[in-house]
Amino acid sequence: MVNETQHSCSGSSSSRSDGGSSSGSEGSKDSSRCSTPVLDADRHERLREKMRRRQEAGDKWFSLEFFPPRTANAAVNLISRFDRMGAGGPLFIDVTWHPAGDPGSDKETSSMIIANTAVNYCGLETILHMTCCNQTKDDITGHLQKAKRLGLKNIMALRGDPTGEEWEEEVDGFNHAVDLVKHIRNEFDDYFDICVAGYPKGHPEAESYEADLRHLKEKVFAGADFIITQLFFRPETFLKFMKDCQAIGITCPIIPGIFPIQGYHSLRQLVKLSKLEVPQEIKDVIEPIKDNDAAIRNYGVELAVSMCRELLDSGMVHGLHFYTLNREVATTEVLKRLGLWKEDPRRPLPWAVSAHPKRRVEDVRPIFWASRPKSYIYRTQEWDDFPNGRWGNSSSPAFGELKDYYLFYLKSKSPREELLKMWGEELTGEESVFEVFTCYITGEPNRNGYKVTCMPWNDDPLATETNLLKDQLEKVNRRGILTINSQPNINGKPSTDPIVGWGPSGGYVFQKAYLEFFTSSEIVTALLKVLKKYELRVNYHIVNVKGQNITNAPDLQPNAVTWGIFPGREIIQPTVVDPVSFLYWKDEAFALWIEQWAKLYEEESPSRMIIQYIHDNYYLVNLVDNDFPLENCLWQVVEDTFELLN
Amino acid sequence: MVNETQHSCSGSSSSRSDGGSSSGSEGSKDSSRCSTPVLDADRHERLREKMRRRQEAGDKWFSLEFFPPRTANAAVNLISRFDRMGAGGPLFIDVTWHPAGDPGSDKETSSMIIANTAVNYCGLETILHMTCCNQTKDDITGHLQKAKRLGLKNIMALRGDPTGEEWEEEVDGFNHAVDLVKHIRNEFDDYFDICVAGYPKGHPEAESYEADLRHLKEKVFAGADFIITQLFFRPETFLKFMKDCQAIGITCPIIPGIFPIQGYHSLRQLVKLSKLEVPQEIKDVIEPIKDNDAAIRNYGVELAVSMCRELLDSGMVHGLHFYTLNREVATTEVLKRLGLWKEDPRRPLPWAVSAHPKRRVEDVRPIFWASRPKSYIYRTQEWDDFPNGRWGNSSSPAFGELKDYYLFYLKSKSPREELLKMWGEELTGEESVFEVFTCYITGEPNRNGYKVTCMPWNDDPLATETNLLKDQLEKVNRRGILTINSQPNINGKPSTDPIVGWGPSGGYVFQKAYLEFFTSSEIVTALLKVLKKYELRVNYHIVNVKGQNITNAPDLQPNAVTWGIFPGREIIQPTVVDPVSFLYWKDEAFALWIEQWAKLYEEESPSRMIIQYIHDNYYLVNLVDNDFPLENCLWQVVEDTFELLN
Repeated sequence: MVNETQHSCSGSSSSRSDGGSSSGSEGSKDSSRCSTPVLDADRHERLREKMRRRQEAGDKWFSLEFFPPRTANAAVNLISRFDRMGAGGPLFIDVTWHPAGDPGSDKETSSMIIANTAVNYCGLETILHMTCCNQTKDDITGHLQKAKRLGLKNIMALRGDPTGEEWEEEVDGFNHAVDLVKHIRNEFDDYFDICVAGYPKGHPEAESYEADLRHLKEKVFAGADFIITQLFFRPETFLKFMKDCQAIGITCPIIPGIFPIQGYHSLRQLVKLSKLEVPQEIKDVIEPIKDNDAAIRNYGVELAVSMCRELLDSGMVHGLHFYTLNREVATTEVLKRLGLWKEDPRRPLPWAVSAHPKRRVEDVRPIFWASRPKSYIYRTQEWDDFPNGRWGNSSSPAFGELKDYYLFYLKSKSPREELLKMWGEELTGEESVFEVFTCYITGEPNRNGYKVTCMPWNDDPLATETNLLKDQLEKVNRRGILTINSQPNINGKPSTDPIVGWGPSGGYVFQKAYLEFFTSSEIVTALLKVLKKYELRVNYHIVNVKGQNITNAPDLQPNAVTWGIFPGREIIQPTVVDPVSFLYWKDEAFALWIEQWAKLYEEESPSRMIIQYIHDNYYLVNLVDNDFPLENCLWQVVEDTFELLN
Repeated sequence: MVNETQHSCSGSSSSRSDGGSSSGSEGSKDSSRCSTPVLDADRHERLREKMRRRQEAGDKWFSLEFFPPRTANAAVNLISRFDRMGAGGPLFIDVTWHPAGDPGSDKETSSMIIANTAVNYCGLETILHMTCCNQTKDDITGHLQKAKRLGLKNIMALRGDPTGEEWEEEVDGFNHAVDLVKHIRNEFDDYFDICVAGYPKGHPEAESYEADLRHLKEKVFAGADFIITQLFFRPETFLKFMKDCQAIGITCPIIPGIFPIQGYHSLRQLVKLSKLEVPQEIKDVIEPIKDNDAAIRNYGVELAVSMCRELLDSGMVHGLHFYTLNREVATTEVLKRLGLWKEDPRRPLPWAVSAHPKRRVEDVRPIFWASRPKSYIYRTQEWDDFPNGRWGNSSSPAFGELKDYYLFYLKSKSPREELLKMWGEELTGEESVFEVFTCYITGEPNRNGYKVTCMPWNDDPLATETNLLKDQLEKVNRRGILTINSQPNINGKPSTDPIVGWGPSGGYVFQKAYLEFFTSSEIVTALLKVLKKYELRVNYHIVNVKGQNITNAPDLQPNAVTWGIFPGREIIQPTVVDPVSFLYWKDEAFALWIEQWAKLYEEESPSRMIIQYIHDNYYLVNLVDNDFPLENCLWQVVEDTFELLN
């Protein structure tokens, strides 16, 4: 490529050709942040730009549709599903809007909160559906404002199903999706990317197929950026529809909605709602096997794969939208068979990047929250600026307080009874706590036969990377070095490494060995003596619940413990041991003993008093081995400490 | 060390206990820059703080005194001497003030400009002497303002020798050094560190030794920070003086002035001026050998070493100040014998750090000026901010223009005749230019028997590091790849490595291989074809004098090509290939063909037209091999290019 001399800053500002001027304040913020190394162009792009770029690059994509769950437990499961299915690399997910379910509320199960969680905590590009009929302008504006505040950037504008039997159009009301599109563009200018629905067979209520196409064109010309279609059963249905759209001047992307048949009853239900007719050839296959779920699902996968292949082969289709029905298996299977599922989802950074527009420049985090990323996001949600490229003292604003422990995405996935089974119905001393930690590391059942699959500081089983350290971790936990976070040293592995890699390909990633644990003051005393021998090599921070802090870190500077070197870029150092934020993390780490563990037991009970004793008397320690090219010396440090104690 | 919880920024702000409030604007600037990783505490300290810290650490130091030269050529030599003697690690140097030599002017040889060069271009902590008698208050204030503007932070306040025969004290005038000390503190608050002179034998004009001690105390109590003494011949002279000072309440550092005898005549001259008496035991040795310079110098070294040892052994002396007489050998020898000369001067960064207070946070520079650091400093002298920790597009202000080519510290050290001998009295074609480049690389004499020791882009012979690449460089220069800058790849060498190391010990340094050269458009065409094969691995920028720019760099981002990982610190990336500044460098790099080379020849002469042709038609190319752990592929790229051309 040949560029003329260009001294200006080539940022990511978006200029929209088809109407609407871009919001001034957003634009100027961008340019002042131009110095952030752009690891992942995606993070700086709007959804419509991502779509365009993928299409131009001939890079096929997929997206996933979910509906909000009915119960809080189901919500927790759905969020885990977002994490798992997000790993396959969807371009976006969307969350439907159920007027009956109080969709704009703060309930754990509302469409708004589920979409918020997907964007902010799972880091997924997300479209929130929104319907308009039977709602006031103020209600709708309120929903949109809230969505914007939460970091949602994309709206699927729908009419919604009239609730009354005899619905009539209201004068000045929102009677059609096009009214909602116009309203969004009027009130929010170009802030949102807008999606609208297309009906390959025509909307069931439309006067005609042609009239419905004209409605669709109106929606697009009112400001919609792309179209997702209703499901259909034959590829030619979609391809004809697409040609018809183009013929009347609709040029925006049209994404086919794919519905893998997953069961007899869900199919019938859907057909009833959508008023679609199932083709005879499909009925003929399904009817005889209608009681065999697995057989139907296999057939559905087969059918969907063959339809998707035909669509992609047509050259007219660049992305596929899946109606998942909140299920995982069938859609994942179809995507894997199509080769669209990313088997090796490259992480842009070592931690999951939030998709909130405010956070798109975020590229440094303290290592302490490595196992509690959602808590970190929650506690930093009020920040206006994120350390971009550098975690300096001056750029670390105050952390949010610890008051909302019971916020649903912060609490443990497991109910009290399960936790008691894992962590002990009755503790007999500090040693029984050591045992719990050890069982969590080894994966072996505890003395009552239960596996310890989570800890107050780690809601998930041991990470693959931590598994590399398993033997040593087991040894030290048995003896009262209660580890809650660790990473091995890495001396320049390719950025594509399946376990420790992150960032664009062609790079190299590095780590300093890290170990974080709770331990008694006796062990700390011995440890400090041992650390004198390692003075130049090992940095430590040792703090108790009262905030008494012992460290050899120079000038409270952060210590970079994960970094990457990439072609044509500045060095990225996404994880640091930051002395200032450690003291905020300390509050959280100690509080988890009480909030998640001690409170499982009766007040004044011996078990509770044991945890309380640990909380009051133990120290939280972190160690960094700065000599990353050599063998990790932290195990030797611990070994020396135990020896000194004997 | 035990710190209580401390969320605040522990910066380097100085609070002075003995008078004067620190300047507000300086202080606040500091705190807003707290996020810069502090590689070298020295850079953030005032001279008096450095002294205190060295004394507390029991770390002995030395300083060097120079006088301003008489001619511009002598100035160029003195500056080279600053660079060489600066490498030995003086705590500071000082430059004397010669009222007869227009010391505050902009002349190349003025005290002001020599001190300015030492601070800004040689990166040395510098004290500027200043005398006050026979000068108006306005003159003196003007000098001080100018010194401050140039980045000088330390003044040696002296009375100076009265010029008239019958000098009389002026009412309200500056009659004594103490008046100057008071004036500096009145007008500039605590901005400057102030040094005053002490006379171990009493000032020759003082009424008595005791009266002189009282004068000294006045100077200190008026605001002086430390004392440097007049020379003396016996250690006991100094030690008695020091005790007498302490007895009357002088507590600031007192630094003995050491004068290694370097020759018979200079000793006699000095004795005459200082009105000191040379002890008989020294006269007895010197008189018999007075015509043997080497013998006198050897004796002088011997004498100085033994006196310095006695002073240091007394436990009362922490630093030694050397009267160098602008000579190198004797002082260096004394310092080496004392073990004070740093044999391995650790570089804080890969390039020489300027000592200007504005630049103390500077820790990133484009690689292009690697061989022309003084030009870089000159062209960025108007910057208010320096990229601190990151060279982003938004943080690169405009570079100064190229108008002042003849500024004395930017021009070649060699006179025209010498340059013609090296670069050719008469060029016969582009090949004769290739030859000049090749001879510079190999160190072999050119066809007329002259060694090429400098080039327009490199005023010094090849750097040790570049020597590692000598064979390959020779090969490519012969064939018209005219290299002006290069570095090998380094995959984690200790920061103490004598050739490529920099920064504090215990760290590791890295480099990406870099090659920069001029070459013809034919070669560029072939090169671009070859580079397609290396698309992911090699980043390039190719530009001609008109600014036509070909690159595969993503989004005009800088590419870090030198970085270091240190214990307890963020990653430092002090050298980058920055696409924006490359276009400023391009102007300079092309202009040097004309300004330094073409203009050696008559207008319209064939030699001049050859250089002009190259200037007008060649491209400036830089290549970075991003795969630093592998063998440098840039030689293969060049090899492939030549093959394609054959």
